[in-house]
Amino acid sequence: MKWYTEKWSEQCKFSLGYDEHIHSEKTAFQQIDFYKGREFGTFFTLDGLMMVNEKDEFIYHDMIVHPAFATNPMIKHVLIIGGGDGGTAREVLRYPTVEKVVMAEIDERVFRLSQQYLPLTAAGIEEDQRMTLHFEDGLQYVRNAPDASFDLILVDSTDPISVGEGLFTTEFYKQCYRVLNDTGILINQHESPYFEEYAENMRKARNKIKAIFPLTKVYQYHMPTYPSGHWLFGFASKSFDPIADIKIAQWKKFSLKTKYYNTDLHIGAFALPNYVKEELASED
Amino acid sequence: MKWYTEKWSEQCKFSLGYDEHIHSEKTAFQQIDFYKGREFGTFFTLDGLMMVNEKDEFIYHDMIVHPAFATNPMIKHVLIIGGGDGGTAREVLRYPTVEKVVMAEIDERVFRLSQQYLPLTAAGIEEDQRMTLHFEDGLQYVRNAPDASFDLILVDSTDPISVGEGLFTTEFYKQCYRVLNDTGILINQHESPYFEEYAENMRKARNKIKAIFPLTKVYQYHMPTYPSGHWLFGFASKSFDPIADIKIAQWKKFSLKTKYYNTDLHIGAFALPNYVKEELASED
Repeated sequence: MKWYTEKWSEQCKFSLGYDEHIHSEKTAFQQIDFYKGREFGTFFTLDGLMMVNEKDEFIYHDMIVHPAFATNPMIKHVLIIGGGDGGTAREVLRYPTVEKVVMAEIDERVFRLSQQYLPLTAAGIEEDQRMTLHFEDGLQYVRNAPDASFDLILVDSTDPISVGEGLFTTEFYKQCYRVLNDTGILINQHESPYFEEYAENMRKARNKIKAIFPLTKVYQYHMPTYPSGHWLFGFASKSFDPIADIKIAQWKKFSLKTKYYNTDLHIGAFALPNYVKEELASED
Repeated sequence: MKWYTEKWSEQCKFSLGYDEHIHSEKTAFQQIDFYKGREFGTFFTLDGLMMVNEKDEFIYHDMIVHPAFATNPMIKHVLIIGGGDGGTAREVLRYPTVEKVVMAEIDERVFRLSQQYLPLTAAGIEEDQRMTLHFEDGLQYVRNAPDASFDLILVDSTDPISVGEGLFTTEFYKQCYRVLNDTGILINQHESPYFEEYAENMRKARNKIKAIFPLTKVYQYHMPTYPSGHWLFGFASKSFDPIADIKIAQWKKFSLKTKYYNTDLHIGAFALPNYVKEELASED
């Protein structure tokens, strides 16, 4: 057994065991590595940072998708920015009411390698008639998308370095606002409060989104393989409040079996610790 | 800089940097090591497992103490089992309404070394007139304690190995039930759902407590330096429900500044992910 090690901060590191380094490739955008271990199954990293593993991908993918659908069960048109492993699309496509899903992933190789090595997240995505795949930069895609054309945008991005950088800019959030319709919701990968480097990205994202959307909140979940295990998504919308407007009975009618998400946890996830609220300078 | 490394599971390990290994000692009960780093400050381990560090001890100590006091702000007599670092006592002693706190810690050296190296958690505890320190086994202590003599018992223990083992037994929980009064609350260190070894301890503790107390729930929090960062406390009581009976206004009157805990988070913390509820076979 060998160890994949990730530095979480200057004085903290995290290691996962693997038996085989099954793929390594440098694309025009980033370094991609796939590994196979027993406990975490197949996992892959981008530029040396953990993205997805078979043990806990369900946590991230439940939490990026279902809170928005419980807030607005009428969502039909969904744009996924990033999400090349397919897990976010997989959860969205479980809603029979969804009519169209666009995935704008900058690096086609992430998707192709996930199809090859990670069927848990990528299988069946391309074959679904409702899916459209665009292998292009997410910022570029939203720039060219028509006004008010989506009910939901899910930003399933890396950290704001290299290819993920444009997805943490004011211009990107403004374009998202424009392409969302009147009841539109934006969910974005919102980093983490615990380690200073991630907390700085968290605060920056928060301040930019807050300046654009009328309603913005942040919710948390336990993601053990991401730095500190304490990870956040941002919820921004033009009209719906994720707590006041949650439609519990309607969401339950979908009868989706979820391993992490439930509607009690949905509400609980928005109750942040004091130190996180202070870092976010959140009034709510 | 050197690295302290802890195995979280067969294929997962976690490392913290330190500059100095300031103390190492084998007592009659366990191996104690104190380290000093920059990012996590001073931290100590028992039998090679992380107990307390200066960066995030506030999370654990807020969450073991304040939910019980928000459920019953009239708590006056408190028994702490374990908790030799002093952090749990520190939070309890912030309530001016508390009249008596007994700490039963099996290993006096943990407390003495914390006084020496970890004033953040241990300073001022022994000097508080309301404190009584008993350096003896927690199980032994409760066996000899009179009926209905405490409002609250906080089990601030290690994992159920070596000295912590007796604190995860049916006999211990039964004795706790006996020494609690009619409105008594028991909070216990409840392990973690993510790694199988910890999850097994979690399930065992749950089943034993459930067979004894009429009301039992489990709540979660983000503790980045404990295995997986997803950690639990058990809430068991003779009469109070931590959600239905929460006294938000009364608790807020204490005007305690807390860095992690707040009453919204209190409620949110009891909303567990589906996979955790299933592991606990929880009906609630």
